[in-house]
Amino acid sequence: MKGISSEIGAGGQPMQRFLREFILTTFKDKKLGGIGLSNLDDSADFGEYVITIDGHTVQPIFFPGGDIGRLAICGTINDLSVMGAEPVAVASSLIIQTGFPEENLRTILESMSKALEEVGASLLCGDTKVVDDPIDIYVTTAGIGRYNQHLEKNLGVVRSYREYPYNFIGDNTLLPGEKIIVTGTIGDHGISLMSLRENLGFETSLRSDVNPLWPVVKSALRVGGVTAMKDVTRGGLSMVLNELAAKSGVNIHIYEEKIPVRREVRAATEMLGLNIYEIACEGKAVIGVLEPFAKQVVRAIRGTKYGGEAEIIGEVVETSGEGHVILKTRVGGETLLDPPMGDPVPRVC
Amino acid sequence: MKGISSEIGAGGQPMQRFLREFILTTFKDKKLGGIGLSNLDDSADFGEYVITIDGHTVQPIFFPGGDIGRLAICGTINDLSVMGAEPVAVASSLIIQTGFPEENLRTILESMSKALEEVGASLLCGDTKVVDDPIDIYVTTAGIGRYNQHLEKNLGVVRSYREYPYNFIGDNTLLPGEKIIVTGTIGDHGISLMSLRENLGFETSLRSDVNPLWPVVKSALRVGGVTAMKDVTRGGLSMVLNELAAKSGVNIHIYEEKIPVRREVRAATEMLGLNIYEIACEGKAVIGVLEPFAKQVVRAIRGTKYGGEAEIIGEVVETSGEGHVILKTRVGGETLLDPPMGDPVPRVC
Repeated sequence: MKGISSEIGAGGQPMQRFLREFILTTFKDKKLGGIGLSNLDDSADFGEYVITIDGHTVQPIFFPGGDIGRLAICGTINDLSVMGAEPVAVASSLIIQTGFPEENLRTILESMSKALEEVGASLLCGDTKVVDDPIDIYVTTAGIGRYNQHLEKNLGVVRSYREYPYNFIGDNTLLPGEKIIVTGTIGDHGISLMSLRENLGFETSLRSDVNPLWPVVKSALRVGGVTAMKDVTRGGLSMVLNELAAKSGVNIHIYEEKIPVRREVRAATEMLGLNIYEIACEGKAVIGVLEPFAKQVVRAIRGTKYGGEAEIIGEVVETSGEGHVILKTRVGGETLLDPPMGDPVPRVC
Repeated sequence: MKGISSEIGAGGQPMQRFLREFILTTFKDKKLGGIGLSNLDDSADFGEYVITIDGHTVQPIFFPGGDIGRLAICGTINDLSVMGAEPVAVASSLIIQTGFPEENLRTILESMSKALEEVGASLLCGDTKVVDDPIDIYVTTAGIGRYNQHLEKNLGVVRSYREYPYNFIGDNTLLPGEKIIVTGTIGDHGISLMSLRENLGFETSLRSDVNPLWPVVKSALRVGGVTAMKDVTRGGLSMVLNELAAKSGVNIHIYEEKIPVRREVRAATEMLGLNIYEIACEGKAVIGVLEPFAKQVVRAIRGTKYGGEAEIIGEVVETSGEGHVILKTRVGGETLLDPPMGDPVPRVC
């Protein structure tokens, strides 16, 4: 009997196949709003709200810059934020191994509470199970985001330039001519975890970027012109760009020298032979913006706590629907940025 | 260092202590509606919606009458239903062990899909993680329920008799004189799992009652007069009655001979020395109803697929706030039904 492979949980092509073969064939796609199950977006909408869910099984559960609690809340806040939705509520399900130290649980819960308070969201309900399975702790969080004035303003700006199909921000909505922004350095989360696990020594200077993106997103929406968004998690920048391109039916040109990468992160990926574009982040988003607003959006993002290194890294180009991401290298060459096949650093979220 | 004990996940008094000591002291109780975190109710409300979440770790994952997929969806549907909310959407997070048979996963997903279709709800979004930890599969589901015409009618009826503090059905809202209904036989789920695990042989005739309660609840709301509801899961009937009594600040009298119990379930509990009132169900609710409507509500529930054995089992009595459940025994005695201390049958949900 065929067994589930670890790759389907890694955010790359095998996961896309799994979703199509197992999920979309089994469940009816009964949308309640514009974005539903078959959109495979970061959240789905119903009424003036969006909902998202994610299970978190990161190892180790404590790492430089955060822990599984902060990761769970930020992951959920970010999936709501990239819809343009204001994160308002989280529901949390804890599965805890018998004997798990109470002190560690308290630390994790406090991290969750602090991350929620950063964006003014609250824990609305929860559930706790205790098992003998050797798991330490898993934290699954579902989140609710709300339509808001900043999103409304942004959609008004976008619709004065082009048609827009949703009341929230989609990820299949890029049009040629639009600019691509990344909200900060990539790879920090995956590499800081890898460094800790492998004792590479980078963990003294390198921390996970696990942060809530709502203030960053809000600053962009306030300017206006945002047409598509995704947060960068499993599968890294490459996965997000390929999803945006394929789902929008456009090609994207990315300028390698524009992509912000920390020196230590680059050094670590080179030492380990990893592809920097496939390494997970936990506090970064890719944003498509109407060309006339791109510079102003970047300036606005740079003024926020977690957006200081935002850059315009590329643009959407005319296409006959290939959905490719073309990386323009430092030396003037071109290379296709393929979506990742698996996860170079497993158990990152 | 003190470790987490398995009892806190068992739905009894230790869980209540855990919730107060760990959760309510850490998180701000920022309500978005009438029922929030500190209510420790089955769901919490925001706008015209309620949300709930539950992790499911049942062992074995396939059992007579259902599997972990049906259990997860029904558990979530039921937590929404007992708020009087119409279940409209579910978000699902799968955590799967590497190598888990694809065939089993397909069966589980189909069970989830079928249970959703029974009540007209849909899967709106999901997440999948694959881990090497020996867990088989955990399924965490969050659900969204909606205010609806049946709930509106019910609240209208209730408010023509008494004050009612919420726009959904609470569990701290019983008043003296109201009747207590259970929607069917108790203990089927826990005992069928126990029988399977221990090879007791009852599994040929006994099946889990894992079923979606919305049609049962809807039939009661249509009559009107429902003042409080909880579904019976971990901790059994005893836990639910004690929570309702304690949170409402009332005493409840329960007539032992009225409680519907299957012959095989009673035989198994006697053989195993288990307290039938502490055994989990997965498709039963306890409903508080205004006295003039109680008989009509029971008749309506009996007309539904999963409510054929509904009974009025007791009533709320005048009290000075003790919050006790008093069991009137067959032989004319009285005994205090204490809330369970732990779980007689672990890993039932």
